[in-house]
Amino acid sequence: MPAGRHFLQIPGPSNVPDRILRAMDYPTMDHRGPAFADVGRAALEGAKWVFKTDSRVIIYPSSGTGAWEAALVNTLSPGDTVLMYETGHFATLWKALAERLGLKPVFIEGDWRRGADPEAIEARLREDKGHEIKAVCVVHNETSTGSVSPIAAIRRAIDAAGHPALFMVDTISGLASIDYRHDEWGVDVTVSGSQKGLMLPPGLSFNAISEKAIGASKRSGLPKSYWAWDDMMGPNDKGYFPYTPATNLLYGLNEAIAMLKEEGLANVFARHARHGEATRAAVQAWGLEVLCARSEDYSGVLTAVVMPEGHSADGFRATALENYDISFGNGLSKVADRVFRIGHLGDFNDLMLCGTLSGVEMALSDAGVPHRKGGVQAAMEVLGGGQSAMRAAAE
Amino acid sequence: MPAGRHFLQIPGPSNVPDRILRAMDYPTMDHRGPAFADVGRAALEGAKWVFKTDSRVIIYPSSGTGAWEAALVNTLSPGDTVLMYETGHFATLWKALAERLGLKPVFIEGDWRRGADPEAIEARLREDKGHEIKAVCVVHNETSTGSVSPIAAIRRAIDAAGHPALFMVDTISGLASIDYRHDEWGVDVTVSGSQKGLMLPPGLSFNAISEKAIGASKRSGLPKSYWAWDDMMGPNDKGYFPYTPATNLLYGLNEAIAMLKEEGLANVFARHARHGEATRAAVQAWGLEVLCARSEDYSGVLTAVVMPEGHSADGFRATALENYDISFGNGLSKVADRVFRIGHLGDFNDLMLCGTLSGVEMALSDAGVPHRKGGVQAAMEVLGGGQSAMRAAAE
Amino acid sequence: MPAGRHFLQIPGPSNVPDRILRAMDYPTMDHRGPAFADVGRAALEGAKWVFKTDSRVIIYPSSGTGAWEAALVNTLSPGDTVLMYETGHFATLWKALAERLGLKPVFIEGDWRRGADPEAIEARLREDKGHEIKAVCVVHNETSTGSVSPIAAIRRAIDAAGHPALFMVDTISGLASIDYRHDEWGVDVTVSGSQKGLMLPPGLSFNAISEKAIGASKRSGLPKSYWAWDDMMGPNDKGYFPYTPATNLLYGLNEAIAMLKEEGLANVFARHARHGEATRAAVQAWGLEVLCARSEDYSGVLTAVVMPEGHSADGFRATALENYDISFGNGLSKVADRVFRIGHLGDFNDLMLCGTLSGVEMALSDAGVPHRKGGVQAAMEVLGGGQSAMRAAAE
Amino acid sequence: MPAGRHFLQIPGPSNVPDRILRAMDYPTMDHRGPAFADVGRAALEGAKWVFKTDSRVIIYPSSGTGAWEAALVNTLSPGDTVLMYETGHFATLWKALAERLGLKPVFIEGDWRRGADPEAIEARLREDKGHEIKAVCVVHNETSTGSVSPIAAIRRAIDAAGHPALFMVDTISGLASIDYRHDEWGVDVTVSGSQKGLMLPPGLSFNAISEKAIGASKRSGLPKSYWAWDDMMGPNDKGYFPYTPATNLLYGLNEAIAMLKEEGLANVFARHARHGEATRAAVQAWGLEVLCARSEDYSGVLTAVVMPEGHSADGFRATALENYDISFGNGLSKVADRVFRIGHLGDFNDLMLCGTLSGVEMALSDAGVPHRKGGVQAAMEVLGGGQSAMRAAAE
Repeated sequence: MPAGRHFLQIPGPSNVPDRILRAMDYPTMDHRGPAFADVGRAALEGAKWVFKTDSRVIIYPSSGTGAWEAALVNTLSPGDTVLMYETGHFATLWKALAERLGLKPVFIEGDWRRGADPEAIEARLREDKGHEIKAVCVVHNETSTGSVSPIAAIRRAIDAAGHPALFMVDTISGLASIDYRHDEWGVDVTVSGSQKGLMLPPGLSFNAISEKAIGASKRSGLPKSYWAWDDMMGPNDKGYFPYTPATNLLYGLNEAIAMLKEEGLANVFARHARHGEATRAAVQAWGLEVLCARSEDYSGVLTAVVMPEGHSADGFRATALENYDISFGNGLSKVADRVFRIGHLGDFNDLMLCGTLSGVEMALSDAGVPHRKGGVQAAMEVLGGGQSAMRAAAE
Repeated sequence: MPAGRHFLQIPGPSNVPDRILRAMDYPTMDHRGPAFADVGRAALEGAKWVFKTDSRVIIYPSSGTGAWEAALVNTLSPGDTVLMYETGHFATLWKALAERLGLKPVFIEGDWRRGADPEAIEARLREDKGHEIKAVCVVHNETSTGSVSPIAAIRRAIDAAGHPALFMVDTISGLASIDYRHDEWGVDVTVSGSQKGLMLPPGLSFNAISEKAIGASKRSGLPKSYWAWDDMMGPNDKGYFPYTPATNLLYGLNEAIAMLKEEGLANVFARHARHGEATRAAVQAWGLEVLCARSEDYSGVLTAVVMPEGHSADGFRATALENYDISFGNGLSKVADRVFRIGHLGDFNDLMLCGTLSGVEMALSDAGVPHRKGGVQAAMEVLGGGQSAMRAAAE
Repeated sequence: MPAGRHFLQIPGPSNVPDRILRAMDYPTMDHRGPAFADVGRAALEGAKWVFKTDSRVIIYPSSGTGAWEAALVNTLSPGDTVLMYETGHFATLWKALAERLGLKPVFIEGDWRRGADPEAIEARLREDKGHEIKAVCVVHNETSTGSVSPIAAIRRAIDAAGHPALFMVDTISGLASIDYRHDEWGVDVTVSGSQKGLMLPPGLSFNAISEKAIGASKRSGLPKSYWAWDDMMGPNDKGYFPYTPATNLLYGLNEAIAMLKEEGLANVFARHARHGEATRAAVQAWGLEVLCARSEDYSGVLTAVVMPEGHSADGFRATALENYDISFGNGLSKVADRVFRIGHLGDFNDLMLCGTLSGVEMALSDAGVPHRKGGVQAAMEVLGGGQSAMRAAAE
Repeated sequence: MPAGRHFLQIPGPSNVPDRILRAMDYPTMDHRGPAFADVGRAALEGAKWVFKTDSRVIIYPSSGTGAWEAALVNTLSPGDTVLMYETGHFATLWKALAERLGLKPVFIEGDWRRGADPEAIEARLREDKGHEIKAVCVVHNETSTGSVSPIAAIRRAIDAAGHPALFMVDTISGLASIDYRHDEWGVDVTVSGSQKGLMLPPGLSFNAISEKAIGASKRSGLPKSYWAWDDMMGPNDKGYFPYTPATNLLYGLNEAIAMLKEEGLANVFARHARHGEATRAAVQAWGLEVLCARSEDYSGVLTAVVMPEGHSADGFRATALENYDISFGNGLSKVADRVFRIGHLGDFNDLMLCGTLSGVEMALSDAGVPHRKGGVQAAMEVLGGGQSAMRAAAE
């Protein structure tokens, strides 16, 4: 094990802060006992605050993939049509999952370099005179590309089309890093996970659910038990769960919520946005290309960087890991070996970012990737002033 | 928070030892990076050792309830008949889960005071000339009653009936506490969880699967994705998982396996058996009744105690918690408020048991429950000699 | 490593609660930076609250032995006479330390079965017409015997003799377990350590110092630097220390103080007293003898038990450790192999005590020590009612 | 508390790695019990390996300041003359401590910009015909200036002068970061502490002692008890200590030794040297001055940077802390507010250093300190190739 701290700069799991690790490092308690209700209620209420919803958040002991499944099986019936949007690899996986469950996804194709297009969605919904489409599913922050979809605009597009479909959003890697508003944006089911902006280890996932979604769940025909919202809601109202919850991760969730409240969600979002900007400044200085092609879709969570033709992104990542003990995300599927992804989310700050970008810059050299120097320098131009500058901006 | 250590004597989650908590208290790592493969392989191989199988163990980020669902959805098709056995509350819950998934359980009734009866199972299978029954599902250690089912004998019963049904066993609370042998006993799917004999917090669950079960999974018609074995097996072969695993719980699992190897599974089982015997000696001395009615079904994991007529088990439990900071399991469903359950599993020793039984004895007095004194004394008669006696017995 | 939790029932170090271990499990911080002042001030102010003094507490990175030395070198000069009292082994060690430093101890002999006698002290002081005696040094809770000295009465004795000597008290094992009042009892220097009632690991020690002691320190001739109060006081006033403090132990100290405040010192003392009473009831039931011969000197911190003639206390302790994974304190010096000591201090509760006493009772049998059964039973008679009874008593 | 990890770049306490924090986060054990001997022996033997001595290392529960005192009180008598060398603030403090203890230091003046001069020492010893000087005391790595003294050369100088004085070296901040050889360099007492290269929290200190020093201790006249080597040696031989040791810090020490063995001391030293070189490259690029004026005295542990005339080093440090959550060491005494010190020691790696230097570069701008950009860039030129380059260099 090399000296010093590993730089875990994949776009999730993100660096788990000591406060959260320590909060989880406590004996598991009786999940049916009276003291547990406080833990459970704090987690369920805190989750609502993070999702910005007054409705209800379901918490599963599972990965985010489970919450994808939960969103679909609770609301839909075998053979239902769902409109999905190809923002990248994870959108494609969600589509494949829907198919495995016996749903019929209509997939709007994308080029993996931008967020979902509200106009395309609106157009497709307008075609659906018979309202065959039961749900519109969009990935908010596409973790494979670093592009953000305009959720509020998509809501408006659905409304403009006058279409009754449920609106489901995956913000697994967006929640608690970039702005997200379940209620205000009219989302019916929001899917998320613990190991990104919430700064927890993986093992918890979430469904924030609207009244409309709850209504749909009463008519849904897909078989379900573990994921069933109806079993959850009664016990949840008293701070309990129908089966054994992942108690120690809930301890951690409550600490994460406390940390987010201390910093303030607006400050959390501003910090991520600033780190995205500094990272893109570095990429530009290196003469490399950001995968996300449209500035309004840039992500504060991660930046995917396109390798120059003829150079292996995976080779570069291996060099970075070997020489500087830093992990980057790999290119997935269509962009395998062609991009690498820099995560700059979660419990992260300016100097960690400078260390990260130094790792990129040195590893580019070591791996013989053509580039100009000066990326870290360019990032420092953006970051200069640090927290004082951020506070000034916030006022 | 009262002084001293809480006595968590529910039949799981069990007391998590410091070694496991500390092993989990490490930064989450890149689950796609080269270093992870060692963690993943150790967990997958170690799990096989615990289940005593050379086949394959699937590890889920979920509660045990999820592994129940996984066992069924991977192997069965809508409308399939399954033979289940009413050993107690958890067997009943598993049956309800099967129903929710669209299966047709045939439920052999039981009185909640003994394990499953191989003869009854054999008889029912012999009736099933057309082999409508696709699976026989039995709970090994029924956590609601403290009765153990004879798994090897049930295997023989299935064979005697010449029935091709899959054999599925829930040993969520039995694994790593009492003897269990997936391969030798001819089980097709074994279901288990992390928070009992494995001494981990909740959040991991398991399916140990036979070749026959894997074969069945290829013909299974129930929709599945998160639970799908086929997606797991490829990545597992290299130490990886198809979606983000519960990394920190895997750290803990590897530590748990190391601890079990250090102690030796045979010693672990002997320790649990001895604690069960001492606990029953105490119950007898108090003049109370053990719920499990048949000595060959006694459990080393927990002891359910029947309250004298007219006395509330839940009132007694509240008194014990209030006065002595000790948690017992409650009576569930049919035996609600009529029994309380003493967990004596996991990371546990003689003096922790004496403390536990002292808590019972004093709380019986405090709650005005008629009993004789001398339970702790009787337990000490059994425990005398301590580890020296255990070692002598082991030789 | 055996299963379950070790019972650390020596009279200190005591069981460190998880809250304190976790509080210490944080990165060390800059002890000269602005954030440290809050940590330092909280520790210094909190210590004053525990010692019940409005004057000043000096905190050393050292064992309690260091604080013994500090008390003497700060206030005395080479060749000074000090009056010390032989309550047991630790009083004898303190005397030996005084001799090594070039002081001249007058040692009032004792039989190691009771606290210091105020009358004997008064008589000796009255003889000292020339006020050669510069300090009276008494051990409050003698850890080698489990006898408590009457500090308030000794203060009155000194006053009655009209003697100007400084009054120094070692309450290393008494602080935060049994009542102690630095100011009200007119103590000039109180010596203590972290690893007993404060529930911390060893590594911090304390001098609570009166104005009179500070005055004496200005005229003291013994060489000193590390222990020098004068270097400490200036930085302490701002929350800092003149050299690097044991930062992580200070984190733990602040958590310990928070825990003591939550429980309330009066409740802490009542809890310890009750556990002493229950332990003595057990010893009596076994037909064994408590070393402390006078009921008004009984300690709530520990109970030293005299072995029957011809039986080895150390052999018994080895059996207990081997068979039940429990540690007891050994007999020291004059009572070596003749007594063993049961610690019942710090983060401890009724059921931990019952487990402890069960360990004694079973190990007595295993080691062939003649005794009657029924000790645990007798202790339970005292403990019955648990925290409800304690709360009722407190009202 | 700001997001992300604090950069603790003072020259000690250094960043404590998770492995060490977790190793300490275990229950305190019985320091008189049989299991403790393994812990004690491992610590005492491991310490010998780190100091490169076959003689003996004494471990104190104290700060490094205590080990300074211990070195003197164990070997010297009141009024003894000691030759000390003014390398900087800590050498001056050690001299003041000697004076408080009643010794007579002869202080060779220095300019705080280089290590001790062997020729000056030899000259002074040659003057001392009567061998009044009983000890030569030198600071190896002067933490206040970042200058290293040539210990082997000083040994040769003492020998060349034919002087019998003891040779005492403070390597509190040098041990386990830069090369140190107690036996080979003929040092009689080496003083060190836990919170620097050993990567532990503060609270342990060390005296490595030669046979000659042990001989001197038998004739030493200064009073001592806590620090007395003679009381330590007997118990140490069996793995025990005469009074309660700082048990949990010993757990951490054993983990630290394991980590140092895994990396290899030669690699540890090479890593520190390389980080020193990269840091100086940055300072030069900024157009600032390194306090250490002689390249052969450069330290791998820390770099002190001289502020341009008219600019406050403390103001700069406050800006850096406020804007980037990074702590630097302050200028002490003679260089107060004129230098700041960058620690690059302990559990540290290339990207942490790049983050650190980015923090300097941005804070210089923010604080309006005149400088050229390009420091981080210059450091990256040195660091390029990372661990591959280091491994290649090592072969």
